[in-house]
Amino acid sequence: MNEVQDIRALVFDVFGTVVDWSSGVAREAEAMLAPKGYNLDWVAFAHRWRAEYQPAMEAVRSGARAFIVLDALHREMLAPVLAEYGVRGLSEAEVTELSHAWRRLDPWPDVRAGLARLRGKYVIAPMSNANVALMVAMSKRGGLEWDLILGAEIAQAYKPMPAAYLSAPRLLALQSQQVMMVAAHAYDLKSAADAGLSTAYVHRAQEFGPDAPPKERPAAGRFNVDVDSFTELAETLGA
Amino acid sequence: MNEVQDIRALVFDVFGTVVDWSSGVAREAEAMLAPKGYNLDWVAFAHRWRAEYQPAMEAVRSGARAFIVLDALHREMLAPVLAEYGVRGLSEAEVTELSHAWRRLDPWPDVRAGLARLRGKYVIAPMSNANVALMVAMSKRGGLEWDLILGAEIAQAYKPMPAAYLSAPRLLALQSQQVMMVAAHAYDLKSAADAGLSTAYVHRAQEFGPDAPPKERPAAGRFNVDVDSFTELAETLGA
Repeated sequence: MNEVQDIRALVFDVFGTVVDWSSGVAREAEAMLAPKGYNLDWVAFAHRWRAEYQPAMEAVRSGARAFIVLDALHREMLAPVLAEYGVRGLSEAEVTELSHAWRRLDPWPDVRAGLARLRGKYVIAPMSNANVALMVAMSKRGGLEWDLILGAEIAQAYKPMPAAYLSAPRLLALQSQQVMMVAAHAYDLKSAADAGLSTAYVHRAQEFGPDAPPKERPAAGRFNVDVDSFTELAETLGA
Repeated sequence: MNEVQDIRALVFDVFGTVVDWSSGVAREAEAMLAPKGYNLDWVAFAHRWRAEYQPAMEAVRSGARAFIVLDALHREMLAPVLAEYGVRGLSEAEVTELSHAWRRLDPWPDVRAGLARLRGKYVIAPMSNANVALMVAMSKRGGLEWDLILGAEIAQAYKPMPAAYLSAPRLLALQSQQVMMVAAHAYDLKSAADAGLSTAYVHRAQEFGPDAPPKERPAAGRFNVDVDSFTELAETLGA
């Protein structure tokens, strides 16, 4: 830990940092499509769907289209993936249900205990590109207890745009450095730091699945805190 | 109870409905000013300060000034009240500290137990004219556990403007009638109902202090639910 002082709030990336999207989306896709006779590589399906994520948001970030919530982008992103995998004949309601797979992801095992400790000392909130309804549904299902929901929809800007990160200190009436961004992705933390926030890296070595090669760890010292779990984050911050 | 069906979220007025502002502001003013030798009618001081509330917000609602958060309005509203009561010589920091009295109000005795039950069945959020930082501070101090913070600052509109109420179904991806506004004030509920929300009236007979004449109850049947406490609300809604 270096140069961390007077932190008052922690804001969290969610997909990959708080919840395990790879196995969760795979599970949800299998639950809907296997009974219809499809036998796909469900993890690959999840990753293919996720590959549409940055291009879809980029259209919003660039100003090419107006802000639209992530639930809607997830639904749009699903269409070409279903076509590629030859999945046909889903009803509109089934497509919506499947697109909400991203609302039904499980937290990593250390998350609930870590958040409970951190909440005793800090204001805690998600700072995700997920929209509010998605975050609320995921949080109630997964037992994630926040002080408030922040993120792209509240900011009307997708990360890594500065306006997304800056919405946290603005709404909490704090200085930027009093807010610590917590994420498993260096690019997210780099952008948060550029906006003036403090940063904590949480290593999720198997973000891409238990059979994927472990993620590489960013160089030591790039972020204020570098840990392997939310409970270690709580320990490090004295929470 | 009448015509209540498929409610998914409850949103709450705060000042008067969730917390006892009259005795709380009186206590906070006394705590700061009595040691300086002032001996005021503290409840009257609180009511005089609160009397500035609607005119201050009206300047924003009318468009005469840009949106400004309630913490800032509370501070502005305090200046003429201090002058009237002959309070002089407070430092800037002391004025800020006193203006944050509204962050340090206690919930009515039934609130925490009622909210805990309601949260098990519904999404719950404040829908107050308080800004986010004020609500977060009050909630952490008072043990109010919400699913998210909604309200005027998120909506960029003060109640009773329709945009304030409508921000709840929009952000939660619900139909307006699936969101129930809970308040101790008929005008607030009337405006919520006009925006399409369901409504629950909670009678806070002594909102204006234990020595004030009890408030009159609105005519029966004006709102979907009419109760005397948050625990009775939970009971009525089967939570």
